[in-house]
Order: sequence, then structure tokens, then C-alpha cells
Amino acid sequence: MNEAESVAHQAWRLIHGKTKPPGSLGKLEALAAQIAAAQGSLAPELDLAALIIFIADHGIAEAGVSAWPQTVTMEMARNFLAGGAAATVFARKFGIPVTLVDAGMREPMAHPKLLDRRLGPGTANFATGPAMSAAQCETALDHGRKLGREAECDALCLGEMGIGNTSSAAMLAHKMLGLPLPELIGPGAGLDAAGVAHKRAILLQAAARTPSRLEPARALAEYGGFEIAMLAGAMLGGAQSRRLVLVDGYIATAAALAALRLEPACRTNLVFSHESAEPGHRLMLDAIGAEPLLQLNLRLGEGTGALVSWPLLRAAGAILADMASFEEAGVSGKRP
Amino acid sequence: MNEAESVAHQAWRLIHGKTKPPGSLGKLEALAAQIAAAQGSLAPELDLAALIIFIADHGIAEAGVSAWPQTVTMEMARNFLAGGAAATVFARKFGIPVTLVDAGMREPMAHPKLLDRRLGPGTANFATGPAMSAAQCETALDHGRKLGREAECDALCLGEMGIGNTSSAAMLAHKMLGLPLPELIGPGAGLDAAGVAHKRAILLQAAARTPSRLEPARALAEYGGFEIAMLAGAMLGGAQSRRLVLVDGYIATAAALAALRLEPACRTNLVFSHESAEPGHRLMLDAIGAEPLLQLNLRLGEGTGALVSWPLLRAAGAILADMASFEEAGVSGKRP
Repeated sequence: MNEAESVAHQAWRLIHGKTKPPGSLGKLEALAAQIAAAQGSLAPELDLAALIIFIADHGIAEAGVSAWPQTVTMEMARNFLAGGAAATVFARKFGIPVTLVDAGMREPMAHPKLLDRRLGPGTANFATGPAMSAAQCETALDHGRKLGREAECDALCLGEMGIGNTSSAAMLAHKMLGLPLPELIGPGAGLDAAGVAHKRAILLQAAARTPSRLEPARALAEYGGFEIAMLAGAMLGGAQSRRLVLVDGYIATAAALAALRLEPACRTNLVFSHESAEPGHRLMLDAIGAEPLLQLNLRLGEGTGALVSWPLLRAAGAILADMASFEEAGVSGKRP
Repeated sequence: MNEAESVAHQAWRLIHGKTKPPGSLGKLEALAAQIAAAQGSLAPELDLAALIIFIADHGIAEAGVSAWPQTVTMEMARNFLAGGAAATVFARKFGIPVTLVDAGMREPMAHPKLLDRRLGPGTANFATGPAMSAAQCETALDHGRKLGREAECDALCLGEMGIGNTSSAAMLAHKMLGLPLPELIGPGAGLDAAGVAHKRAILLQAAARTPSRLEPARALAEYGGFEIAMLAGAMLGGAQSRRLVLVDGYIATAAALAALRLEPACRTNLVFSHESAEPGHRLMLDAIGAEPLLQLNLRLGEGTGALVSWPLLRAAGAILADMASFEEAGVSGKRP
């Protein structure tokens, strides 16, 4: 039994002794045990969350795989900066500070609140060649790792923005997990049936460029986005520094696939916050045995699902940290 | 179109104009429209929540229908007062004030923080006669209504404690909805298979005392608990004063069935917070067409599910109140 398993085991014993019928807090109990294991503490602390949103453009957008024009990446970056987007609105409501990172938008945008981690003016179109170089991928992972490690928080919510990035995520899941590509391809931010068919044709062609299975760094370089590689890095950095990492939806889970392949031990720290309405998400989650907390039919990204699951984490942590045991409270046990 | 429908209609138009793909915030969008309708406002305010826990004993507990001794009702009341129970722990974590109401525990308990609304030393055993008189039921509804109306909050979380109260809830759903009783009977707070069989036998016998369908006030008097009747009253009072009412699990939903029969218009204000692990809960929810927000396998009661869904309400309200529209943010629409 490693340290995480040992702490989880002790946590379960404590959880069963808390004043409630055993198991009656359902998924929150499993979450409490996971939090204990991640923090290495039977009285976990969850006071501060932080949100990082990584933003980048995707060359594959040229191929018409999104329902939205590519300019929306930049426009939404401005909307984040102005605080009018869903993720920034939710974060403000929950008192969660937001860090915005330009991982490589088509054009630079000078703004005091936008961290410059640009790796280029968007990735190259992966239909015809690698999205980025191996060196760029390495740098993206490093930037993400550093941000994840240095974030001032107990729980790190991670989000992304990038027109075209469901295409990237589908390719990553296909190449890393070996799941059938057509089942991973969905409407993304709102393609109609004809749009999905076009996206499928483009991605099948893109898939044929490389071997059927790829190692994570290669998969990220061939088909990733700068924001996705940084997300993966941030997951590793967050986990390394014993933070809980709230994985958002379809895109973030694709990043998590890479993080889990690179450093499987980070699994203890990753909380899969919700099941996206994008159909391929369920397949990814099943493939890694992840049971998401929420089923809200979200499919926005930006970290919105991670944000709304943060209060559940706090409640779960408090089961261990604050609830009385039967003994402490003088509450009788079950009838014999 | 009544006022609530008209506000909801306007709310949906605004929601579709917010900077996100239409529908991409899933259930939170429907919740936002509901909040607008309940408050009669397109910029809803959700700053304060409050929790009321109604506590009472049940004569039916004498028949051995619970896995726990009846003393646990009193012991848990003390645990609430000391702040060590799950609901009080979650409420503290979320900054939500808690009101504890003695609706009729077996013995009185003098405590400055316990509101005395006692209607007796627990209900009578409904296996052999009515749980309470029509007058007691009326008083319970009135007490609840007043508390619901006067709670200082935008959203009212409602919880309960009372050993034996899943039996009461099963009977209420059976008599008000006509659902088959055996399908409504589950393990409650932890009966084994033999215990469930015994509970079933007792409840089938109790059901035979009265006609197959009962009006809500009669159903509450015959089979209710004091805490359940007060819950129903609190839902009506909360709705009347345009508060959102967060309905918890199996017991609270049984109370909601009564509230909805008494005043159908309260539906606009009731948010069904989660789907309980108690199997009959799904049947009740389906019967009234309610789609719960969370699936966390909770089965504790106390208002725990209502509490953990409160942050989702805040996020949903903020979609309308705080998110920028495409026009305001200068974000492009979908590709033609």
C-alpha cells in the first residue's frame, strides 16, 4: 500500500464513524477519501480555489471544423478579461481568482491581466502536419507545470478556450486510448449534422498521417493545442504540489489523458468534475475509470464545470475535517 | 401565458444571447429561467440562503421500520445544535444560517437555539390509526408556512430529521400519487433485506386502513410526520414570498407532493436538488416531472442535498444577472 492508499484507507474508517448512516453521503464520501489521499491529511483543508484559463488558437480551424469563426478565441479572451464570460462570472460569484494565459492565440493581445506564454500564433493545421514541434510541446508542458505548481490554492480549477479544440481533443483520445475516432467526434460548440460529417472527414484524414497509437508527448505535438498541452502540464504541477485538480469537460479530460500517461500518480489528485454533453466525453471517462461528480449537460468549457464542482469538494472535505463521530456526539448506533 | 411563464420566456431569450453556444450551460440554463420566473426578475439576486431543519419523532418507529433506535432523533438534534452533523457542517462551510425546529420529538429539549413548534411527543403509530389529527396537520402547515415566509433569504434549503420518516414518505407518495407501495419502500437509513421485508409488511397493513387515494391534508394527517407537514408548509410559505425553495431528497419530495397538490403554483419556486439513493425517490420525481440537479447517491436527508445544490443556483442566477451578451462583448456569432 503506498502513502495515498494508506491515507485513503484511514480516511474511509473515519468517514464510516461519522454521524450518518454509512455510505449515505454517496459520492461525497469517496471524494472525501480522495481529498485526504491527495493532501496526505485526515483533516483536509479546502479554503482556496483558483482558476487558470489557457487560451490558444488551432490551425485545424482553417478546415472548417467549428461552428464558430476563429476570431471568437480572441473575442472571448477579451470577454474573460472584462469579466463577462460564464467562467469569470462563476468564479467571481464563488470568490475564486482567475488567471488568464495566452498560450498562443493567433495574434498577441497586450493586457496587464493576460499572462504571456505564447508559443506561436496558434498551432499549425494538423490535417497536413504536426500541430507543434516537440520542443514547443515540451515548453507548453513546462509552462503549465510551473503555473500549476505555483498557483496559490488548495484546489486548482482548469479551463480552456480555443476555437477548434474539440477536434484536437478527439484526436488525442483516439491516439492515446485507441478509441474509435468517429465515436469521439461530436458537435463541439454547435455543429449541425452536416458540420459533424465534415469534421469527421477532416479528422479521419488527419488521423491517417500517423501510427494508430501515439505516446502522450507525440500525440500532443501531432494533434494538440498549446492550451491543451499547458493544461496537461498544469495538472502535473498541481498534483505534484498536492493540490486537488478539478478537471473540466471534454478538452480538459483529453489533457488529463496525457497527464495520466506521463505521470500516473497524478490520478490521486484529479477530480473529474462533470460529464460533458459532448458524446465522446463519456468514452474517455470510461476508458480511465473516472466517475464524474456532476451530470449537468454542460458543454461550454472555460472551466465552468470545474468551478461549479468546487463547493462539492469543500463539503466533502468537511465530512472528514468537521463532522462529529458517533462517539464524539453520543449518537447511538444501528439497532442490533 | 401567466406572469411566471412570461418571465421565463423573456429569460430564455436573454440566456440564448449570452456569450456561449446556445444550450451549452445545460441544466444551469433551465435553472436560470426558473429562478427568473420565481423571482419575477430578469436579473435575479441570489445572495443569501438559509437552512431550516424540522425534527420530529414517528410512532411508526415502534413497529421496527428503521435500522436505528428512535433515540437517534433526539441525539441527532443535539448533534445539529452542537454543529457536528453533516447538514450543519455543510451550512457552516457555505456561510448559511441554520434554524432548528422541534416539530414534535418524543421529549422536549430546552435549548436557546431550538425553536419550539412541538405538536406532540411524536406522531401516533399510523399502522393502527392516524398519525395526527386534522387540526395538528393544519397547525403544522401553518407553522411551516410562517417560517418559510419569514426566513431571511433568497433561497430556502429545507431539511428534516426523524427516525422512521422514510416509512411516512413512502405512504404519502403511495396515497397521493397512487404509485405501488412496494416500489416506494427502500432501505431508508440502512435496513438489510429482512428489515425491508418487515417494513413492507407493516406499511402494506397500514395502507389498508384507508382508501387507496387521499387528498394531501388527509394523507399528511393519516401517515405524515410533524416535520413533513411543516416542510410542506415551509415550501408553500417560501414560494408565496417568491423565494427559491431547495427541495432535498426522499422525505422532502414527499412533502413537496403535498405542497404541489395544495397550491400547484408553488412549482415555479421548487428546485429539486438531487436524486436520492432511496429507490422510490426516482418514482416520485418522475411522477411530477421533476428533473433533479444532482446525482450524488445521497440518502442522508437533513437538507444536505439542498445545501450542496445552493452554489449551482447562484451560478445559474449569475448567467442572467452577470454574463455579457454577444452584443455587449462584441463576440461574433456562428459561421453562416
